[in-house]
Amino acid sequence: MEHRYRLLLSCPDRVGIVSMVSNFISSHGGSIADANQHSDPTTGWFFMRVEIFAESLPFSLERLREQFAPIAQSFQMEWQITDSARPKRVVLMASREAHCLADLLYRYHADELDCEIPCVISNHDALRSMVEWHEIPYYHVPVETADKQPHFDRVLQLVRDHEADVVVLARYMQILPEALCELYPHRIINIHHSFLPSFAGAKPYHQAHERGVKLIGATCHYVTQELDAGPIIDQEVTRISHRDMPEEMVRLGRDVEKTCLARGLRWHLEDRILVHGNKTVVFN
Amino acid sequence: MEHRYRLLLSCPDRVGIVSMVSNFISSHGGSIADANQHSDPTTGWFFMRVEIFAESLPFSLERLREQFAPIAQSFQMEWQITDSARPKRVVLMASREAHCLADLLYRYHADELDCEIPCVISNHDALRSMVEWHEIPYYHVPVETADKQPHFDRVLQLVRDHEADVVVLARYMQILPEALCELYPHRIINIHHSFLPSFAGAKPYHQAHERGVKLIGATCHYVTQELDAGPIIDQEVTRISHRDMPEEMVRLGRDVEKTCLARGLRWHLEDRILVHGNKTVVFN
Amino acid sequence: MEHRYRLLLSCPDRVGIVSMVSNFISSHGGSIADANQHSDPTTGWFFMRVEIFAESLPFSLERLREQFAPIAQSFQMEWQITDSARPKRVVLMASREAHCLADLLYRYHADELDCEIPCVISNHDALRSMVEWHEIPYYHVPVETADKQPHFDRVLQLVRDHEADVVVLARYMQILPEALCELYPHRIINIHHSFLPSFAGAKPYHQAHERGVKLIGATCHYVTQELDAGPIIDQEVTRISHRDMPEEMVRLGRDVEKTCLARGLRWHLEDRILVHGNKTVVFN
Amino acid sequence: MEHRYRLLLSCPDRVGIVSMVSNFISSHGGSIADANQHSDPTTGWFFMRVEIFAESLPFSLERLREQFAPIAQSFQMEWQITDSARPKRVVLMASREAHCLADLLYRYHADELDCEIPCVISNHDALRSMVEWHEIPYYHVPVETADKQPHFDRVLQLVRDHEADVVVLARYMQILPEALCELYPHRIINIHHSFLPSFAGAKPYHQAHERGVKLIGATCHYVTQELDAGPIIDQEVTRISHRDMPEEMVRLGRDVEKTCLARGLRWHLEDRILVHGNKTVVFN
Repeated sequence: MEHRYRLLLSCPDRVGIVSMVSNFISSHGGSIADANQHSDPTTGWFFMRVEIFAESLPFSLERLREQFAPIAQSFQMEWQITDSARPKRVVLMASREAHCLADLLYRYHADELDCEIPCVISNHDALRSMVEWHEIPYYHVPVETADKQPHFDRVLQLVRDHEADVVVLARYMQILPEALCELYPHRIINIHHSFLPSFAGAKPYHQAHERGVKLIGATCHYVTQELDAGPIIDQEVTRISHRDMPEEMVRLGRDVEKTCLARGLRWHLEDRILVHGNKTVVFN
Repeated sequence: MEHRYRLLLSCPDRVGIVSMVSNFISSHGGSIADANQHSDPTTGWFFMRVEIFAESLPFSLERLREQFAPIAQSFQMEWQITDSARPKRVVLMASREAHCLADLLYRYHADELDCEIPCVISNHDALRSMVEWHEIPYYHVPVETADKQPHFDRVLQLVRDHEADVVVLARYMQILPEALCELYPHRIINIHHSFLPSFAGAKPYHQAHERGVKLIGATCHYVTQELDAGPIIDQEVTRISHRDMPEEMVRLGRDVEKTCLARGLRWHLEDRILVHGNKTVVFN
Repeated sequence: MEHRYRLLLSCPDRVGIVSMVSNFISSHGGSIADANQHSDPTTGWFFMRVEIFAESLPFSLERLREQFAPIAQSFQMEWQITDSARPKRVVLMASREAHCLADLLYRYHADELDCEIPCVISNHDALRSMVEWHEIPYYHVPVETADKQPHFDRVLQLVRDHEADVVVLARYMQILPEALCELYPHRIINIHHSFLPSFAGAKPYHQAHERGVKLIGATCHYVTQELDAGPIIDQEVTRISHRDMPEEMVRLGRDVEKTCLARGLRWHLEDRILVHGNKTVVFN
Repeated sequence: MEHRYRLLLSCPDRVGIVSMVSNFISSHGGSIADANQHSDPTTGWFFMRVEIFAESLPFSLERLREQFAPIAQSFQMEWQITDSARPKRVVLMASREAHCLADLLYRYHADELDCEIPCVISNHDALRSMVEWHEIPYYHVPVETADKQPHFDRVLQLVRDHEADVVVLARYMQILPEALCELYPHRIINIHHSFLPSFAGAKPYHQAHERGVKLIGATCHYVTQELDAGPIIDQEVTRISHRDMPEEMVRLGRDVEKTCLARGLRWHLEDRILVHGNKTVVFN
């Protein structure tokens, strides 16, 4: 992958945004590698993503940001420019279940995920050897049921110490405190093992079995203060039948969960996701 | 399709059911065309479906039922034997939306649905010419918002007069009164335009758009007194994106709804569905 | 849908295309409703589609084309500008099988396909009443096995007389002569009842049964002189099992064929498809 | 999973097979856990799979086989009875690509695959540390392009020494010699990285890109002497677009390949697959 800058922006829709942005880029000799726009008629909001060949521009990322800032301001944009040469730092959190963590680590190993993984944090010690085989530090931070705050304090400290850009809850079975969620808006990604909004909360496969559904699913979403209600990034389902008891659904669900989480994380790492209100725009 | 008898049964699980049933059949020279069993460990219930080549048996359907009754009784079976040569009578109900009705009528026309359709009932007159082109009687039974009971009385009378085996709600947008539901247990099939239990009730596509889901779906289920909560026969989903506004979701949803309803009805017509509690066993 | 102009273009990739095009539009006050770009690194070719709100421009379609022509020339573009207010004219061709034709007519009736259907041409008379119920002229043009040319001459004349923009082969089972294909490049759409390139030629479901595949499919493609080898627009598959004999595969395949054809046609009608060499770029 | 015997049989179809088999089982007090039948009208062949609770029978596996042999003979059955308590021994073969091997090892680790893996054989040393982390012996058996026979001789010896029931080619990129294929009929499982019969042979993703298909796939099949032409166990596809260059297709294809191979192997381990001619019956 060549070196690219990625511009993500959203703002109230009006005439001339695309033209102003592409003009700005070409006036500096910049070459557009990829561009996407979306205009949402229900909210009147405009979304855009542009990838620019970094070499085609005569200045640095910082200078690019400076130059673009006045345009952004005049359109009241929420915006960011990232650099493909600076991979995001992803802290993974897990509990006892290995499938999502193993899958992400494998993909990382196979260069499918363009990121750095400075550490894995878990409330159990079960997955240590797998993680350490990948030469990634593993922090076992137990949870005391009586008082979970020390656990979360330590987690936050580790996340900060490792300068995480993103935190991925790879079947980390604890509910994060609101305060922690607020510190990382749209930067904590969770995989919920149901097709939300069906079966939010605990034991979704057992709920699904109880209801007798014919498809089960998983939902990759950003974590917000409201449990299982954050902006949905991706969803995936698989077919089941009357023969599938909850254990079988758990097994089949694992494949759906890991596929869905890996895809959502990949989109996040490639700066393909914009959030507006409680919904995502995914330029994929 | 050769002439076949279809035996459907369910009962508490115990040793020897399959053997007793297959023995009974072969002792009369009966040849099994197809057979399925399922034993549910969570409920301890056993389910079986057998198709027998009718010509291989030396007696009539009535005699077959008489002969089988003692076995059924000894195992406390819920059971039925149907005859593939006697197509079920399906009364279709619709409102103003054509897609499910048009799809079922086309499949009926193309011999994909082994049934008779004695009539179509609608609370609007909009779909009359399409139905009458198929030479099927069309009854327009308007609904008075102030008092819906006369509508339902007339519907029930028509369903009875046409000796319906099954009633299909092909996007008939009224909620059937409990009394009517109870008269036709597991014989009224509805298509709900969401992936239940998500978005039960009205305007599911708008609910789905509001929540920002990435897949939308449809659910084919038997109607019970509790709205949108009956045993699920089949479900289907399709992928959407941020570009899809509710109208687009309605359009994409139509294909999912009609596919799902047609499949569910087909299974019902072929006696492939057993209901136990609020769940279905589908031998397909 | 508001009134829009749709600009489709492709050309050798180089710096400044997006900027030049969006600049041209905004310099005339034009407002971009939707835009997509694609740059193919293997061919060095660039593709773009822009929808412009027609009311935002101060001149007519003809004037827009005139104004854009110099830009197009300077970039050596293949290009077209169409008007959403002028629906394409689609001539449908069928044989004896109803499913694709019935599906397209239903979608046309339900305003899912933004087009006009001036006539249906068939080498059989079987589908006349269905077509005429939709108040569309039906031409029965029989084929003589000994000499098919008179049939094709008459077909071409009808297609011309009805000023077709597109011809859709909705399971029209004849092979068009090369000369006819050449007259309508990328304007004749066929549905092939297999997942090409598997099972090209005749009786694909029987070939699929013979090989024992576990998925069957359909392919919507533009017709070229080489049989079943034109640019692929869309493909779709469905799962089958050992229980499915060829007749069952034909039935299941029908749903795949009609979905795939309708989707491909819809993309064509919305000017979402660009062809380069033997491949399509679909901006959907 | 309770202890079960699994009876697999196929024979010319005739009256009384199910009854004879189920009678035999129940006459010894045997309790049927699961049973499936299939009768193929095109070949006149009958297929059956029965799972029996082992504890319900008064004798051992050997005695069960002895007792059943006369019945099998009288119906000219091809048959086998296996014991769920004796997991199959699976020798995995790989080359340099990790994804299928890593996936199978992870599933093995997570108890999703009921088998033993006595060793992994590869013509490269690249995957050694991953395999050894799982505490499974790794044999690096290089291939000399000039003369591959010594490689295959060593492979066969290792497969024999480890008493393999099944050999899985998890992206092992060599073509096995005919003689070796014949020694393990329906016991060597391969994953081919295309939707066969499309793109058999080398570099299927490049072939697919060249042709411009819109779905790519993978095929899990038993290896026979004829390359890529053995009985198909399972197939899977995923959607691609014009944006996906061959490298992207390789990445997306990996997920399809590993899912498809794991599912096929699982069915084999659970004795769910019967082969007749060049086709499989899969009772899943």
